[in-house]
Amino acid sequence: MKLASLNQGRDGELIVVSRDLARAVRATDIAPTLQAAIEHWETLAPRLEQRYAQLNDSTAEGAFDLDQRALHSPLPRTYNWADGSAYLNHVQLVRQARNAEMPDSFWHDPLMYQGGGDAFIAPTEDIEAVSEEHGIDFEGELAVITDDVPMGVDAAAAAEHIKLIMLVNDVSLRGLIPGELAKGFGFFQAKPASSFSPICVTPDELGNAWQDSRVHLPLTVHLNGETFGQPEAGPDMIFGFAELVAHAARTRHLGAGAVIGSGTVSNPGPDGGPGKPVGDGGVGYSCLAEVRMVEKILYGESRTPFLRFGDRVRLEMFNRDGQSIFGAIDQQVVAYHAP
Amino acid sequence: MKLASLNQGRDGELIVVSRDLARAVRATDIAPTLQAAIEHWETLAPRLEQRYAQLNDSTAEGAFDLDQRALHSPLPRTYNWADGSAYLNHVQLVRQARNAEMPDSFWHDPLMYQGGGDAFIAPTEDIEAVSEEHGIDFEGELAVITDDVPMGVDAAAAAEHIKLIMLVNDVSLRGLIPGELAKGFGFFQAKPASSFSPICVTPDELGNAWQDSRVHLPLTVHLNGETFGQPEAGPDMIFGFAELVAHAARTRHLGAGAVIGSGTVSNPGPDGGPGKPVGDGGVGYSCLAEVRMVEKILYGESRTPFLRFGDRVRLEMFNRDGQSIFGAIDQQVVAYHAP
Repeated sequence: MKLASLNQGRDGELIVVSRDLARAVRATDIAPTLQAAIEHWETLAPRLEQRYAQLNDSTAEGAFDLDQRALHSPLPRTYNWADGSAYLNHVQLVRQARNAEMPDSFWHDPLMYQGGGDAFIAPTEDIEAVSEEHGIDFEGELAVITDDVPMGVDAAAAAEHIKLIMLVNDVSLRGLIPGELAKGFGFFQAKPASSFSPICVTPDELGNAWQDSRVHLPLTVHLNGETFGQPEAGPDMIFGFAELVAHAARTRHLGAGAVIGSGTVSNPGPDGGPGKPVGDGGVGYSCLAEVRMVEKILYGESRTPFLRFGDRVRLEMFNRDGQSIFGAIDQQVVAYHAP
Repeated sequence: MKLASLNQGRDGELIVVSRDLARAVRATDIAPTLQAAIEHWETLAPRLEQRYAQLNDSTAEGAFDLDQRALHSPLPRTYNWADGSAYLNHVQLVRQARNAEMPDSFWHDPLMYQGGGDAFIAPTEDIEAVSEEHGIDFEGELAVITDDVPMGVDAAAAAEHIKLIMLVNDVSLRGLIPGELAKGFGFFQAKPASSFSPICVTPDELGNAWQDSRVHLPLTVHLNGETFGQPEAGPDMIFGFAELVAHAARTRHLGAGAVIGSGTVSNPGPDGGPGKPVGDGGVGYSCLAEVRMVEKILYGESRTPFLRFGDRVRLEMFNRDGQSIFGAIDQQVVAYHAP
């Protein structure tokens, strides 16, 4: 099943989207918002599935052509946005660039930060930034939406609470990160509003690409119309989503609608070293920081700039038949002027 | 005006509470929840104020005796819970205990962490904890609720967005903090669900105790029925709430209902050194970590234990006439067993 939210009101209006993303039908009579649906998932999911079947059969009443630009992030806001960093290749690279070793504990204890969920941006909405000097970057990721997760569940139980999957652009201000991390309280101003793919899907939509609570497909990243990365999201995700959800719920209950992110998708090269850019025959990257770190390691300096106003980032994932699964995050960076 | 939420449903049901906290009246016809009220504050606040006046005049229809145990936290969940650490005496003490100097930058750049807002606990609900070994602690704080705050506002503009004030118990698992801070991503498992005072109030309710977006009154802390602290919340708050809100909004818009905390209320002693316990003539503390740090500095070891199952914490604030302003957070720690 594929679901989305029309960009209306603070929480959007729930629609069901056809498998090929061409058509949609309102579902507000079943649940006004995706948040409301996830809060009563056991009861409402079967009704939504039924409408999804009708939509794919062209028997759904009131179906209309889908314009992805009319969509907000599936949850335009959430009470809990927690982002892991499960691709340790990314973490190793970041630390290597500043000559810091990665602790062994990172291989068994997931990294996760608490994000702000009150004002996500729509998938085709501009990324407003105060200054290019902040080192504006994108991070291509996957994320899951859970229902209510009791405190202290193990990974096997946590897996049962993963109801929906989507893409994320976890916008990051790299220039603000070192100062914030030095303060010891984690990211805050360095992590402005994220955006999510226009469509979220139930795990069964991924078929056998959903294994061990990982998505075994490449993430396609375009920067200003050029292919920047096609990293595989499956094999190098050290912790699956089940482990990430269990980590998030270790000392607290998670409320329905919690969004748990994977961290930046990242692959090492075939030799285990840093991966190569697409232009050099590699799979590329899903953030600028990574190519800059690879450049620093190889050439002693970063050459690729961070995002400038006017730059455009596009994140999408295709199934093995070449069909877009989640629709596209497609955003331009623009200058923001405070009131 | 004083507002609260009956502990019904995920977001509570909005009520207006009399100035003396004795009586209440439903306000769900004006806004079903406090979240809904804060989203349309300009329009709805005057109607709520009118009902508050009627309640205090004993002319409100349907008024009833208030039982604080029937209340949830004013916002039982929020899309944004961000907690500052504006009492630098607390920060200095923590760092002194581990022989780390506090950077000078801390005097002009606020500390703030992003908390999880999806499942707050009610003010008289038990604090469920997996293990006493986690070093269970309370943190007595103040917090404000804002309406929509545009990105990049300065402190003067931010002050106008502070609509409501309340108390917080920012439950902390001290034993998990060093490991999490070493990972560099900030607090996560170390900060389980917080709770808030049963009643929140508009700034005017504080009279001249609300100055420079600080609350100039002592916070009363009881531990197992004994006075543990009465620290003054005003003078040693290095950053007022206006500065904290502006800090939170520097690189993103804040959605209506954002909750911004002050950090643990803390006073140095009259000599500028660590403050003394109440039993030694000092104002005491609003968390256990602080007395443990003072003990470590004075005696070379911490003597006061962290919370044990069965311990009870009570946080309250009284006006200069001795009347409770926000009602009491009054919670017992209990053992939690995962499903």
